[in-house]
Amino acid sequence: MTARRPGAAGTRSATAQARVRAAHARLREVDRPEVWTLLLPEADALAAARRVDQRVAAGEHLPLAGTTLAVKDNVDVAGLPTTAGCPSYATDPRGRPGPAPRTAPAVQALLDAGAVLLGKTNLDQFATGLVGTRSPYGAVRHATLPDRVSGGSSSGSAVAVALGVADIGIGTDTAGSGRVPAAFHGLVGIKTTVGLVPTDGVVPACASYDVVTTLTRDLATGAHATRIMVEASGDRSGGRGWPADVRLALPEHPVVAVPRAADLEALTPSWRVAFRAAVAHARAVGARTVEVDVSGMLAAAHLLYDGAILAERYAAVGDFLAGSPPDADPTVAAIVLAGASVSAAEYVRDRAALATARAHALDVLDGCDLLLLPTTTDHPTLADVAADPVGVNRRLGTYTNFVNLLDLAAVALPVGTVDGEPFGVSVLARAFDDQPALDLAARLLAPVAGDGAQVLPRPVAPLVVPGSVELLVVGPADGAVRRTLAGLGGRCERGARTSDAYELRAPDGDEPRPAYPHGPALARVARGAGASFAGDVWRLSAGALGRLLVSLPAPAALGPVELTDGSWVVCWTCVPRAPAATGARAGPGRPAVLATQRT
Amino acid sequence: MTARRPGAAGTRSATAQARVRAAHARLREVDRPEVWTLLLPEADALAAARRVDQRVAAGEHLPLAGTTLAVKDNVDVAGLPTTAGCPSYATDPRGRPGPAPRTAPAVQALLDAGAVLLGKTNLDQFATGLVGTRSPYGAVRHATLPDRVSGGSSSGSAVAVALGVADIGIGTDTAGSGRVPAAFHGLVGIKTTVGLVPTDGVVPACASYDVVTTLTRDLATGAHATRIMVEASGDRSGGRGWPADVRLALPEHPVVAVPRAADLEALTPSWRVAFRAAVAHARAVGARTVEVDVSGMLAAAHLLYDGAILAERYAAVGDFLAGSPPDADPTVAAIVLAGASVSAAEYVRDRAALATARAHALDVLDGCDLLLLPTTTDHPTLADVAADPVGVNRRLGTYTNFVNLLDLAAVALPVGTVDGEPFGVSVLARAFDDQPALDLAARLLAPVAGDGAQVLPRPVAPLVVPGSVELLVVGPADGAVRRTLAGLGGRCERGARTSDAYELRAPDGDEPRPAYPHGPALARVARGAGASFAGDVWRLSAGALGRLLVSLPAPAALGPVELTDGSWVVCWTCVPRAPAATGARAGPGRPAVLATQRT
Repeated sequence: MTARRPGAAGTRSATAQARVRAAHARLREVDRPEVWTLLLPEADALAAARRVDQRVAAGEHLPLAGTTLAVKDNVDVAGLPTTAGCPSYATDPRGRPGPAPRTAPAVQALLDAGAVLLGKTNLDQFATGLVGTRSPYGAVRHATLPDRVSGGSSSGSAVAVALGVADIGIGTDTAGSGRVPAAFHGLVGIKTTVGLVPTDGVVPACASYDVVTTLTRDLATGAHATRIMVEASGDRSGGRGWPADVRLALPEHPVVAVPRAADLEALTPSWRVAFRAAVAHARAVGARTVEVDVSGMLAAAHLLYDGAILAERYAAVGDFLAGSPPDADPTVAAIVLAGASVSAAEYVRDRAALATARAHALDVLDGCDLLLLPTTTDHPTLADVAADPVGVNRRLGTYTNFVNLLDLAAVALPVGTVDGEPFGVSVLARAFDDQPALDLAARLLAPVAGDGAQVLPRPVAPLVVPGSVELLVVGPADGAVRRTLAGLGGRCERGARTSDAYELRAPDGDEPRPAYPHGPALARVARGAGASFAGDVWRLSAGALGRLLVSLPAPAALGPVELTDGSWVVCWTCVPRAPAATGARAGPGRPAVLATQRT
Repeated sequence: MTARRPGAAGTRSATAQARVRAAHARLREVDRPEVWTLLLPEADALAAARRVDQRVAAGEHLPLAGTTLAVKDNVDVAGLPTTAGCPSYATDPRGRPGPAPRTAPAVQALLDAGAVLLGKTNLDQFATGLVGTRSPYGAVRHATLPDRVSGGSSSGSAVAVALGVADIGIGTDTAGSGRVPAAFHGLVGIKTTVGLVPTDGVVPACASYDVVTTLTRDLATGAHATRIMVEASGDRSGGRGWPADVRLALPEHPVVAVPRAADLEALTPSWRVAFRAAVAHARAVGARTVEVDVSGMLAAAHLLYDGAILAERYAAVGDFLAGSPPDADPTVAAIVLAGASVSAAEYVRDRAALATARAHALDVLDGCDLLLLPTTTDHPTLADVAADPVGVNRRLGTYTNFVNLLDLAAVALPVGTVDGEPFGVSVLARAFDDQPALDLAARLLAPVAGDGAQVLPRPVAPLVVPGSVELLVVGPADGAVRRTLAGLGGRCERGARTSDAYELRAPDGDEPRPAYPHGPALARVARGAGASFAGDVWRLSAGALGRLLVSLPAPAALGPVELTDGSWVVCWTCVPRAPAATGARAGPGRPAVLATQRT
């Protein structure tokens, strides 16, 4: 992984102003103007940082206070032009003339959380490319390897972060644009399920498949920013809400699909070795790996650039590029303008083929929690790309192009180096399994002790899923309970204690089935007359809690229990037994009184 | 509504063979050959009926035993050609040459359930039309009004059912093809959410929006067949499964959106009066009606035939029609071939417009359970259609065209007659609110006593939602509990009794919040030592049960309770109180022993 540099995440406790000053010092030091399409004057960034510092001083909790931000220039920031890597696009009437009227909600959410914008970053024009060279602002070279490409299309954001200038680079990702540059720089790139982060205010590449992403040096910062951007979607109609049975965590021993050797032939030999090591590492951190045939998924990639889906690019910026703007990148223009001749019938057939491919991918992943793949194939030089711009680009997308098309989520992360260069893998997940993917990434990144033991990392900022619910589990750590909850996608979130109004009561009597969880359950006594019990609060989807409840054998039950802070949380309890002395409001002679109208 | 005729649903107890004989007797009586593209010989249908009768005699439960079936000829039946209303399509190599190799899964499920196929029915060619006249097999006249159109495109299936020949007509519906002919014949047409009934083995009209539908004389038969067809989708990957928080019933007092007067201008004056009466009837059966502006939804309709979505029709059968087959209907061919010139970019833009329209429709329906609209505008004559085939067709689709495009479900049903002709309305619902829509249709169709009282009909065959769960509610009928469960989309499904091992126990002690439901809860005693309590079993989505659980204040709880048949079901109970004599396995001095590792 890239070593920490001045201004990097390790100094997060500094004031926002100090961090902006450090960023600009680093900027001057690295002298990489091609990273930016528009760098804000230091004074402007400092003014924004001062406002953040003032809010923090006034006691506001700003989770990203002072985090420096670089935003890819196909995402709107109010008052700034959005060039999408083509300066004339920001003024041409067929483009988006004039400065953006408002900031894209995803970016606004980060600014509201205390991030400070440094500037807008260079990109493969119109987010069309994985190389980082297709821009009139200049090819973005790799951060540390001067003859190599940076990867794209989120090239400027990736390099700004890799150089230690910005803490969070905002990218966009349709075919791998948020992941390939992460792989080349040892960064973490988080590409959520399509539709979770709002794409309002983004110049579309393929509108159906575009995702706003984060590029960061560490997973925690990226996950935190992602969480905030997902929350920015609110409950917009038309947005893609979390399903009511979404999984909120990875089980302790996940099943991770990995490709067959035949699916890895696009990799350089040394990267193939590195990928095998990454698979072994996944096993070392608790995963069971299963080889699957991903050739069908990889084959779907050709629909993105060779197929009719290309027409989405034409629909977005084709009219503009058809006017032959002088600053159009010739490779990009050729790709996009090819979309003009695609018929709707061809597009419809390709969408149908994609639906079939999606169903096939779900079949392949059946029984698996996640899929681990290399992020890209090799690290080409600038000269390689100049010699064969389309061919090299296509190769780099082998393991990323199909992901959005097949409605998968992805986290790209570094897993060490090969010959001194970063090597990256991607954790892929079914739509909405974003948190399980982040969890596996966290495990792969967490240190392993010499004896192979690993303390499973808790997510620093797990995605917030509206409608998810809490469950307190009290009693001895029970592997079966833990496995059941994890199997339902539950996440152990925090410790908590009941108020001192409880006793543990053993199930007894003639129950025909064993209690689950085995052992005693909470019973209520007068306040202060009982004990306070410690437990774990798990977070579950509402659907998972309902499924858990119907799976419980008697006498287990679930009901609210009071915590020390006076709040209530659902807890394991049991169906009470009526004590001979005090129960029996109704006896065998009285049921009709209490029965409903239907007897 | 159409009166019952020989062979109609009222004689369901007859043998399948008797019902096939009655159907053929009725066939000879009505002499309407244009209804069929292929009528099976009576002997063949009788042979199939005999097999059904034998299975029933052998003790098999066949829910549709002896129900007669007419299948629109754009749906495959094994061994028969699928003409889609164009005979040469069934033999042309660009069509589907030769007999269908297998029966469409939706139809196969009905046959497996005991339905007996009578034949394949005529349609507006390639399911393109709402009139029923666009077919080389002849225009399908209305069942009883010889100068009027039957409505289409599911014309033959509708007329076969309306004439009392078949019990279930299978239609398809993209723009209203399963609803408009229902309206003209006083039938019930059920068009589920796109993707719930499998469309494998169906000649696509617009593949993204096609739905296999039922046309029946009564709601119960249609609902039953629909349930079976939905179940046929199984858990196919790529299928569109029920969400984990799906609503399974309509609340007792639903909020029903109705259009403003301005949105009803397309209706004939007498139908406008009839629609107002239908709205009043909805209020009489317990709905609260709210006027909404549906003009945005109606405007979306133009995207289906005027817009690029048309290209889906070209993608399906354009290559075939481009070959100028002699039996192509000229109106249909002109419509479909216009799709050839649509560019993919136009299609992409129209899809984006549809997504916006969908979000807008959800906003309009916010706070409403359902939307009530007229099904169509007027009942044209055959001469009207001949004079202006496209204009009349377009008008008929005013209230149906947008429905599938905006991802809504619909049930078309008759609400009396105007000048002796059936008048129909449609209950529209958000995607997956199919059961609530069926429930409102049932209420609108159920008899109302002279005093305005109505016994709310229970669904005869509610849709089966895998993953939904049961909850027993014991105790006095409690309006608050009923409203809470109904508000969560719960359906009161059946009565049940606990085993005789329970007593009712009143919550007592220092509980800080009132128990919910108010009153006592079940406690367990030894078998035979308690009483058996009667209650209602509600069915809920797993998500709804989870949400209910976390909303319960102490000491209410939910846990399994034994029924008289030895099965267990989740029931309201309460967090037990530890009796001084028997509880207290752990006291204040002992919690650490039982605490988890996290204290």
